[in-house]
Amino acid sequence: MPAESFAAEKSSCSFEKEAREAVYRAIHTRRDVRSHFVPGSIDDAVLARLLTAAHHAPSVGYMQPWNFIVIRDTGRREKVRDLFLTARGEELSAVATERQALYRKLRLEGICESALNLCITCDRTRAEGSPLGRWHNPEMDLYSTVCAVQNFWLAARAEGVGVGWVSILDSAALRNLLGIPGHVVPVAYLCVGPVSEFALKPDLETKGWRQRLPLSSLIMSETFGGDGEAPLKALADGMAADCAPAC
Amino acid sequence: MPAESFAAEKSSCSFEKEAREAVYRAIHTRRDVRSHFVPGSIDDAVLARLLTAAHHAPSVGYMQPWNFIVIRDTGRREKVRDLFLTARGEELSAVATERQALYRKLRLEGICESALNLCITCDRTRAEGSPLGRWHNPEMDLYSTVCAVQNFWLAARAEGVGVGWVSILDSAALRNLLGIPGHVVPVAYLCVGPVSEFALKPDLETKGWRQRLPLSSLIMSETFGGDGEAPLKALADGMAADCAPAC
Repeated sequence: MPAESFAAEKSSCSFEKEAREAVYRAIHTRRDVRSHFVPGSIDDAVLARLLTAAHHAPSVGYMQPWNFIVIRDTGRREKVRDLFLTARGEELSAVATERQALYRKLRLEGICESALNLCITCDRTRAEGSPLGRWHNPEMDLYSTVCAVQNFWLAARAEGVGVGWVSILDSAALRNLLGIPGHVVPVAYLCVGPVSEFALKPDLETKGWRQRLPLSSLIMSETFGGDGEAPLKALADGMAADCAPAC
Repeated sequence: MPAESFAAEKSSCSFEKEAREAVYRAIHTRRDVRSHFVPGSIDDAVLARLLTAAHHAPSVGYMQPWNFIVIRDTGRREKVRDLFLTARGEELSAVATERQALYRKLRLEGICESALNLCITCDRTRAEGSPLGRWHNPEMDLYSTVCAVQNFWLAARAEGVGVGWVSILDSAALRNLLGIPGHVVPVAYLCVGPVSEFALKPDLETKGWRQRLPLSSLIMSETFGGDGEAPLKALADGMAADCAPAC
């Protein structure tokens, strides 16, 4: 077989227009769900597909440092929600005074309303003696775990399953509640379940907490703060959208 | 309009089977590209779509902490490659003796061979006075930036564009070279460009560095190390695949 044909066969998994648009649709209509969970369960087959997607994230040195703790027990989830409520009160006191009233109105978790919770952790010792890609930047295993979270999240969007990431939690208290040992980091605590809708815009934008920044203002050329890339910036601002055209 | 119809309209962006499979296909066939970059450029329109995807990542408190430094200059990229070569030598000395020969054979970057490089950074001061979701876990802004990286990577796969994350770099040296100030963290240094193929399996698996772990071994129930979820584990191991069926 000529080399070109072989290359064509190997790269044959190219995306037609519709498939490409589906990927962008998942990316642009994914939401951090807090308010819109509805009663219902997630089939194990669906959850297995979502976890398989997470497990196929990139990982530094192929170390696959993640674990997935599936939390269904109502009593345990109520305890996690109590941790959230305590943490929310602590965080509120650090928010600028003029924003506290708005902060109080925000719905920030769906721990007990969602079908299940999932804690995605990072085992920092999984590749001892094989620091490939991590000797200079040991945090890379945490970053790999976040890639798994994002894979899970996008796959969930495609399955019509809502996901919300709760970061207002005291890590030490969460570790204690879930029995997470010292060499393991709880990276993400997720609420997962059926939803009534995926909102058109992020809740924090709708509620006026912050607005989406113009993409062009975030693009730099060659060095930090470097001017340039005018054509790219014009295109970027032209296509900014909360929802892909096909949606 | 009855409430149910409104809910249906809001959530109308559901994914048909083919669209869902396309999302899984991007997830399962995405590769960390090092060896397969080929000469060629990336259209600004494509790059703008990829950056728009990155910009639609979730971010803690909607802070959108990322910047995107587009690096095209050959001389600058050669300097980054020199940083990589130095760092690789340093890391090699930390690898277990019996694995050093294999490490030496691995191709770990495509800095100069790819069409362009992209440094995705995290500005840790972007939401000062608004620590929503970050008071207890200040690293959340770094994690948000990683979500942007993964969005970029998956969108690139759907566009047929290869991406490789180079983590074997000294951060201080990279900061110096790109003029990145102290309050900004260079989270990911990416090589981006046309490729000859997307390999069927991760390079590090093919070369024997590590193998993919059985997903069932990574699933826990209720607490860290907790037994249970037998049906879920059986389904998870049944569907493990490096490439989605549709590919």
